[in-house]
Amino acid sequence: MSEEELKGFSEKIGDIKQKVYSFPECGCLIGAEVCSFCTPGRRDPSLICLVSSPKDVFAIEETRAYKGLYHVVGALLSPLEGRTPDQLKIEKLKTRCAALSPREIIIALDSTLEGDATSLYLREQLESLGFITTRLAFGLPMGSSLDFVDFGTLEKALTGRQRF
Amino acid sequence: MSEEELKGFSEKIGDIKQKVYSFPECGCLIGAEVCSFCTPGRRDPSLICLVSSPKDVFAIEETRAYKGLYHVVGALLSPLEGRTPDQLKIEKLKTRCAALSPREIIIALDSTLEGDATSLYLREQLESLGFITTRLAFGLPMGSSLDFVDFGTLEKALTGRQRF
Repeated sequence: MSEEELKGFSEKIGDIKQKVYSFPECGCLIGAEVCSFCTPGRRDPSLICLVSSPKDVFAIEETRAYKGLYHVVGALLSPLEGRTPDQLKIEKLKTRCAALSPREIIIALDSTLEGDATSLYLREQLESLGFITTRLAFGLPMGSSLDFVDFGTLEKALTGRQRF
Repeated sequence: MSEEELKGFSEKIGDIKQKVYSFPECGCLIGAEVCSFCTPGRRDPSLICLVSSPKDVFAIEETRAYKGLYHVVGALLSPLEGRTPDQLKIEKLKTRCAALSPREIIIALDSTLEGDATSLYLREQLESLGFITTRLAFGLPMGSSLDFVDFGTLEKALTGRQRF
Protein backbone atom coordinates (compact mmCIF):
# COMPACT_ATOMS: atom_id res chain seq x y z
CA MET A 1 0.00 0.00 0.00
CA SER A 2 1.17 3.53 -0.74
CA GLU A 3 1.19 6.15 2.06
CA GLU A 4 -1.94 7.72 0.56
CA GLU A 5 -3.83 4.41 0.45
CA LEU A 6 -2.80 3.66 4.04
CA LYS A 7 -4.03 7.12 5.17
CA GLY A 8 -7.40 6.60 3.46
CA PHE A 9 -7.69 3.14 4.95
CA SER A 10 -6.91 4.37 8.47
CA GLU A 11 -9.47 7.18 8.16
CA LYS A 12 -12.15 4.71 7.04
CA ILE A 13 -11.40 2.40 9.96
CA GLY A 14 -11.49 5.32 12.39
CA ASP A 15 -14.90 6.41 11.09
CA ILE A 16 -16.58 2.99 11.28
CA LYS A 17 -18.30 3.53 14.62
CA GLN A 18 -19.77 6.86 13.45
CA LYS A 19 -20.74 5.77 9.94
CA VAL A 20 -21.80 2.14 10.26
CA TYR A 21 -24.47 1.26 12.76
CA SER A 22 -27.11 -1.28 13.49
CA PHE A 23 -30.51 -0.22 12.14
CA PRO A 24 -32.96 -0.10 15.06
CA GLU A 25 -35.83 -1.91 13.34
CA CYS A 26 -34.07 -4.96 11.88
CA GLY A 27 -30.59 -4.95 13.41
CA CYS A 28 -28.82 -5.01 10.01
CA LEU A 29 -25.55 -3.09 9.72
CA ILE A 30 -25.96 -0.03 7.51
CA GLY A 31 -24.13 3.10 6.49
CA ALA A 32 -27.17 5.08 5.32
CA GLU A 33 -30.34 6.59 6.76
CA VAL A 34 -32.51 3.61 5.90
CA CYS A 35 -31.66 -0.10 5.87
CA SER A 36 -31.35 -1.12 2.22
CA PHE A 37 -32.54 -4.67 2.99
CA CYS A 38 -35.78 -3.42 4.54
CA THR A 39 -36.64 -0.62 2.09
CA PRO A 40 -40.36 -0.93 1.32
CA GLY A 41 -41.04 -1.87 -2.29
CA ARG A 42 -37.65 -3.36 -3.07
CA ARG A 43 -38.00 -6.52 -0.97
CA ASP A 44 -40.75 -9.03 -0.26
CA PRO A 45 -42.24 -8.07 3.16
CA SER A 46 -44.08 -11.39 3.44
CA LEU A 47 -40.82 -13.22 4.26
CA ILE A 48 -38.65 -12.52 7.31
CA CYS A 49 -35.33 -14.29 7.79
CA LEU A 50 -34.04 -14.49 11.37
CA VAL A 51 -30.24 -14.51 11.71
CA SER A 52 -28.06 -14.40 14.79
CA SER A 53 -25.54 -11.83 13.61
CA PRO A 54 -25.52 -8.93 11.10
CA LYS A 55 -22.73 -10.64 9.12
CA ASP A 56 -25.04 -13.56 8.28
CA VAL A 57 -27.16 -11.08 6.31
CA PHE A 58 -24.26 -10.52 3.91
CA ALA A 59 -23.65 -14.28 3.56
CA ILE A 60 -27.30 -14.90 2.64
CA GLU A 61 -27.32 -11.90 0.28
CA GLU A 62 -24.38 -13.41 -1.61
CA THR A 63 -26.48 -16.44 -2.52
CA ARG A 64 -28.93 -14.15 -4.41
CA ALA A 65 -31.62 -16.69 -3.51
CA TYR A 66 -33.51 -14.57 -0.98
CA LYS A 67 -35.54 -11.42 -1.56
CA GLY A 68 -37.32 -10.97 1.78
CA LEU A 69 -36.55 -8.94 4.90
CA TYR A 70 -34.08 -9.76 7.68
CA HIS A 71 -34.22 -9.60 11.45
CA VAL A 72 -31.08 -9.95 13.56
CA VAL A 73 -31.89 -11.68 16.86
CA GLY A 74 -28.41 -10.79 18.11
CA ALA A 75 -27.41 -13.90 20.06
CA LEU A 76 -27.80 -17.66 20.36
CA LEU A 77 -29.09 -19.06 23.64
CA SER A 78 -26.39 -20.54 25.85
CA PRO A 79 -27.23 -20.80 29.56
CA LEU A 80 -23.62 -21.86 30.32
CA GLU A 81 -22.34 -18.59 28.88
CA GLY A 82 -25.12 -16.56 30.44
CA ARG A 83 -27.08 -15.94 27.22
CA THR A 84 -30.72 -16.30 28.16
CA PRO A 85 -33.96 -15.57 26.22
CA ASP A 86 -33.96 -11.94 27.50
CA GLN A 87 -31.04 -11.18 25.17
CA LEU A 88 -32.99 -12.19 22.07
CA LYS A 89 -35.21 -9.09 22.35
CA ILE A 90 -38.16 -11.29 21.53
CA GLU A 91 -40.74 -8.56 22.18
CA LYS A 92 -39.22 -6.36 19.47
CA LEU A 93 -39.34 -9.32 17.06
CA LYS A 94 -42.95 -10.10 17.94
CA THR A 95 -43.98 -6.46 17.47
CA ARG A 96 -42.29 -6.34 14.05
CA CYS A 97 -43.87 -9.63 12.96
CA ALA A 98 -47.30 -8.46 14.13
CA ALA A 99 -46.90 -5.28 12.05
CA LEU A 100 -45.68 -7.07 8.90
CA SER A 101 -47.83 -10.25 9.13
CA PRO A 102 -45.34 -12.34 7.12
CA ARG A 103 -46.54 -15.55 5.48
CA GLU A 104 -43.30 -17.31 6.53
CA ILE A 105 -40.53 -16.69 9.05
CA ILE A 106 -37.27 -18.42 8.10
CA ILE A 107 -35.03 -19.32 11.02
CA ALA A 108 -31.50 -19.24 9.58
CA LEU A 109 -29.39 -20.11 12.60
CA ASP A 110 -26.33 -22.36 12.96
CA SER A 111 -26.81 -26.13 13.12
CA THR A 112 -25.04 -26.22 16.50
CA LEU A 113 -26.44 -27.01 19.95
CA GLU A 114 -26.99 -23.30 20.66
CA GLY A 115 -28.52 -22.77 17.21
CA ASP A 116 -30.91 -25.70 17.71
CA ALA A 117 -32.00 -24.48 21.15
CA THR A 118 -32.54 -20.93 19.89
CA SER A 119 -34.46 -22.15 16.82
CA LEU A 120 -36.80 -24.24 18.96
CA TYR A 121 -37.37 -21.32 21.33
CA LEU A 122 -38.11 -18.92 18.47
CA ARG A 123 -40.43 -21.43 16.79
CA GLU A 124 -42.39 -21.89 20.02
CA GLN A 125 -42.69 -18.14 20.55
CA LEU A 126 -43.70 -17.34 16.97
CA GLU A 127 -45.97 -20.31 16.22
CA SER A 128 -47.96 -19.55 19.40
CA LEU A 129 -48.85 -16.26 17.68
CA GLY A 130 -49.99 -18.10 14.55
CA PHE A 131 -46.90 -17.51 12.35
CA ILE A 132 -45.46 -20.24 10.11
CA THR A 133 -41.77 -20.87 10.76
CA THR A 134 -39.29 -22.84 8.64
CA ARG A 135 -35.65 -23.72 9.17
CA LEU A 136 -32.68 -24.03 6.78
CA ALA A 137 -32.28 -27.53 5.36
CA PHE A 138 -29.71 -29.94 6.79
CA GLY A 139 -27.82 -32.41 4.64
CA LEU A 140 -24.74 -32.89 2.49
CA PRO A 141 -22.78 -29.70 1.85
CA MET A 142 -22.10 -28.95 -1.83
CA GLY A 143 -19.15 -30.75 -3.39
CA SER A 144 -18.85 -33.28 -0.58
CA SER A 145 -18.35 -37.00 -0.82
CA LEU A 146 -20.20 -39.52 1.35
CA ASP A 147 -16.76 -40.57 2.66
CA PHE A 148 -16.23 -37.27 4.42
CA VAL A 149 -19.54 -36.55 6.11
CA ASP A 150 -20.30 -37.49 9.72
CA PHE A 151 -23.11 -39.90 10.60
CA GLY A 152 -25.36 -37.15 11.96
CA THR A 153 -25.23 -35.27 8.66
CA LEU A 154 -25.73 -38.47 6.65
CA GLU A 155 -28.78 -39.33 8.76
CA LYS A 156 -30.26 -35.85 8.21
CA ALA A 157 -29.54 -36.14 4.48
CA LEU A 158 -31.23 -39.55 4.37
CA THR A 159 -34.32 -38.63 6.38
CA GLY A 160 -34.66 -35.32 4.53
CA ARG A 161 -34.37 -36.89 1.06
CA GLN A 162 -36.51 -35.37 -1.65
CA ARG A 163 -37.56 -35.87 -5.24
CA PHE A 164 -35.39 -33.83 -7.58
CA MET B 1 1.27 -55.77 18.65
CA SER B 2 2.66 -59.09 19.87
CA GLU B 3 4.11 -61.56 17.34
CA GLU B 4 0.96 -63.68 17.66
CA GLU B 5 -1.36 -60.74 16.98
CA LEU B 6 0.74 -59.73 13.98
CA LYS B 7 0.59 -63.30 12.58
CA GLY B 8 -3.21 -63.39 12.97
CA PHE B 9 -3.50 -59.97 11.36
CA SER B 10 -1.30 -60.95 8.42
CA GLU B 11 -3.31 -64.15 7.85
CA LYS B 12 -6.58 -62.19 7.84
CA ILE B 13 -5.22 -59.70 5.33
CA GLY B 14 -3.93 -62.54 3.13
CA ASP B 15 -7.34 -64.20 3.13
CA ILE B 16 -9.38 -61.11 2.26
CA LYS B 17 -9.66 -61.80 -1.46
CA GLN B 18 -10.90 -65.38 -0.80
CA LYS B 19 -13.24 -64.57 2.07
CA VAL B 20 -14.68 -61.16 1.28
CA TYR B 21 -16.36 -60.65 -2.05
CA SER B 22 -18.92 -58.55 -3.80
CA PHE B 23 -22.36 -60.20 -3.73
CA PRO B 24 -23.51 -60.61 -7.35
CA GLU B 25 -27.07 -59.34 -6.85
CA CYS B 26 -26.49 -56.10 -4.94
CA GLY B 27 -22.73 -55.50 -5.09
CA CYS B 28 -22.38 -55.26 -1.27
CA LEU B 29 -19.16 -56.61 0.26
CA ILE B 30 -19.87 -59.77 2.25
CA GLY B 31 -18.05 -62.60 3.97
CA ALA B 32 -20.95 -65.07 4.01
CA GLU B 33 -23.06 -67.04 1.55
CA VAL B 34 -25.86 -64.47 1.45
CA CYS B 35 -25.71 -60.68 1.68
CA SER B 36 -26.93 -59.74 5.15
CA PHE B 37 -28.31 -56.42 3.89
CA CYS B 38 -30.51 -58.12 1.31
CA THR B 39 -31.75 -61.11 3.33
CA PRO B 40 -35.49 -61.40 2.68
CA GLY B 41 -37.61 -60.70 5.75
CA ARG B 42 -35.02 -58.72 7.68
CA ARG B 43 -35.08 -55.62 5.51
CA ASP B 44 -37.75 -53.55 3.75
CA PRO B 45 -37.68 -54.62 0.07
CA SER B 46 -39.81 -51.66 -1.00
CA LEU B 47 -36.83 -49.31 -0.61
CA ILE B 48 -33.60 -49.54 -2.61
CA CYS B 49 -30.66 -47.25 -1.90
CA LEU B 50 -28.20 -46.72 -4.75
CA VAL B 51 -24.60 -46.09 -3.67
CA SER B 52 -21.45 -45.72 -5.73
CA SER B 53 -19.16 -47.89 -3.61
CA PRO B 54 -19.58 -50.82 -1.17
CA LYS B 55 -18.05 -48.74 1.64
CA ASP B 56 -20.96 -46.26 1.47
CA VAL B 57 -23.22 -49.12 2.60
CA PHE B 58 -21.34 -49.28 5.92
CA ALA B 59 -21.53 -45.48 6.36
CA ILE B 60 -25.31 -45.50 5.84
CA GLU B 61 -25.73 -48.54 8.12
CA GLU B 62 -23.97 -46.63 10.91
CA THR B 63 -26.71 -44.00 10.88
CA ARG B 64 -29.29 -46.71 11.80
CA ALA B 65 -31.83 -44.61 9.90
CA TYR B 66 -32.29 -46.93 6.92
CA LYS B 67 -33.85 -50.39 6.79
CA GLY B 68 -34.18 -51.02 3.06
CA LEU B 69 -31.97 -52.78 0.52
CA TYR B 70 -28.83 -51.50 -1.18
CA HIS B 71 -27.54 -51.57 -4.73
CA VAL B 72 -23.95 -50.65 -5.56
CA VAL B 73 -23.75 -48.97 -8.97
CA GLY B 74 -19.96 -49.24 -8.83
CA ALA B 75 -18.84 -45.94 -10.36
CA LEU B 76 -19.67 -42.30 -10.90
CA LEU B 77 -19.88 -41.01 -14.46
CA SER B 78 -16.84 -39.06 -15.59
CA PRO B 79 -16.29 -38.80 -19.33
CA LEU B 80 -12.88 -37.17 -18.74
CA GLU B 81 -11.70 -40.21 -16.83
CA GLY B 82 -13.34 -42.62 -19.25
CA ARG B 83 -16.22 -43.66 -16.96
CA THR B 84 -19.26 -43.86 -19.21
CA PRO B 85 -22.82 -45.16 -18.56
CA ASP B 86 -21.75 -48.70 -19.64
CA GLN B 87 -19.81 -49.05 -16.37
CA LEU B 88 -22.92 -48.46 -14.24
CA LYS B 89 -24.33 -51.89 -15.21
CA ILE B 90 -27.68 -50.23 -15.62
CA GLU B 91 -29.37 -53.31 -17.08
CA LYS B 92 -28.62 -55.32 -13.92
CA LEU B 93 -30.10 -52.50 -11.83
CA LYS B 94 -33.22 -52.28 -14.02
CA THR B 95 -33.73 -56.05 -13.82
CA ARG B 96 -33.44 -56.00 -10.03
CA CYS B 97 -35.81 -53.05 -9.70
CA ALA B 98 -38.34 -54.73 -12.00
CA ALA B 99 -38.22 -57.86 -9.82
CA LEU B 100 -38.56 -56.00 -6.52
CA SER B 101 -40.95 -53.21 -7.61
CA PRO B 102 -39.75 -50.80 -4.89
CA ARG B 103 -41.98 -47.88 -3.92
CA GLU B 104 -38.92 -45.59 -3.76
CA ILE B 105 -35.35 -45.68 -5.05
CA ILE B 106 -33.00 -43.48 -3.02
CA ILE B 107 -30.02 -42.14 -4.95
CA ALA B 108 -27.30 -41.69 -2.31
CA LEU B 109 -24.39 -40.38 -4.36
CA ASP B 110 -21.84 -37.65 -3.63
CA SER B 111 -22.83 -34.01 -4.07
CA THR B 112 -19.98 -33.53 -6.57
CA LEU B 113 -20.11 -32.87 -10.31
CA GLU B 114 -19.75 -36.61 -11.05
CA GLY B 115 -22.35 -37.48 -8.39
CA ASP B 116 -24.82 -34.96 -9.84
CA ALA B 117 -24.35 -36.23 -13.39
CA THR B 118 -24.74 -39.86 -12.32
CA SER B 119 -27.82 -39.06 -10.21
CA LEU B 120 -29.51 -37.31 -13.12
CA TYR B 121 -28.68 -40.22 -15.44
CA LEU B 122 -30.02 -42.80 -12.98
CA ARG B 123 -33.16 -40.76 -12.36
CA GLU B 124 -33.84 -40.52 -16.09
CA GLN B 125 -33.32 -44.26 -16.59
CA LEU B 126 -35.44 -45.30 -13.59
CA GLU B 127 -38.27 -42.78 -13.84
CA SER B 128 -38.80 -43.74 -17.49
CA LEU B 129 -39.71 -47.19 -16.13
CA GLY B 130 -42.20 -45.65 -13.69
CA PHE B 131 -40.10 -45.81 -10.49
CA ILE B 132 -40.04 -42.97 -7.98
CA THR B 133 -36.53 -41.71 -7.23
CA THR B 134 -35.37 -39.42 -4.42
CA ARG B 135 -31.98 -37.95 -3.59
CA LEU B 136 -30.20 -37.26 -0.29
CA ALA B 137 -30.91 -33.77 1.07
CA PHE B 138 -28.43 -30.94 0.62
CA GLY B 139 -27.90 -28.25 3.23
CA LEU B 140 -25.96 -27.35 6.33
CA PRO B 141 -23.88 -30.20 7.76
CA MET B 142 -24.49 -30.93 11.46
CA GLY B 143 -22.66 -28.73 13.94
CA SER B 144 -21.77 -26.09 11.36
CA SER B 145 -21.99 -22.35 11.65
CA LEU B 146 -23.29 -20.09 8.87
CA ASP B 147 -19.86 -18.46 8.90
CA PHE B 148 -18.18 -21.57 7.55
CA VAL B 149 -20.46 -22.78 4.78
CA ASP B 150 -19.98 -21.86 1.14
CA PHE B 151 -22.61 -19.90 -0.80
CA GLY B 152 -23.73 -22.93 -2.80
CA THR B 153 -24.52 -24.88 0.37
CA LEU B 154 -26.23 -21.87 1.95
CA GLU B 155 -28.37 -21.44 -1.17
CA LYS B 156 -29.37 -25.13 -1.10
CA ALA B 157 -30.15 -24.85 2.63
CA LEU B 158 -32.28 -21.77 2.01
CA THR B 159 -34.22 -23.10 -0.98
CA GLY B 160 -34.68 -26.49 0.72
CA ARG B 161 -35.96 -25.00 4.00
CA GLN B 162 -38.66 -26.94 5.77
CA ARG B 163 -41.04 -26.73 8.72
CA PHE B 164 -39.57 -28.46 11.75
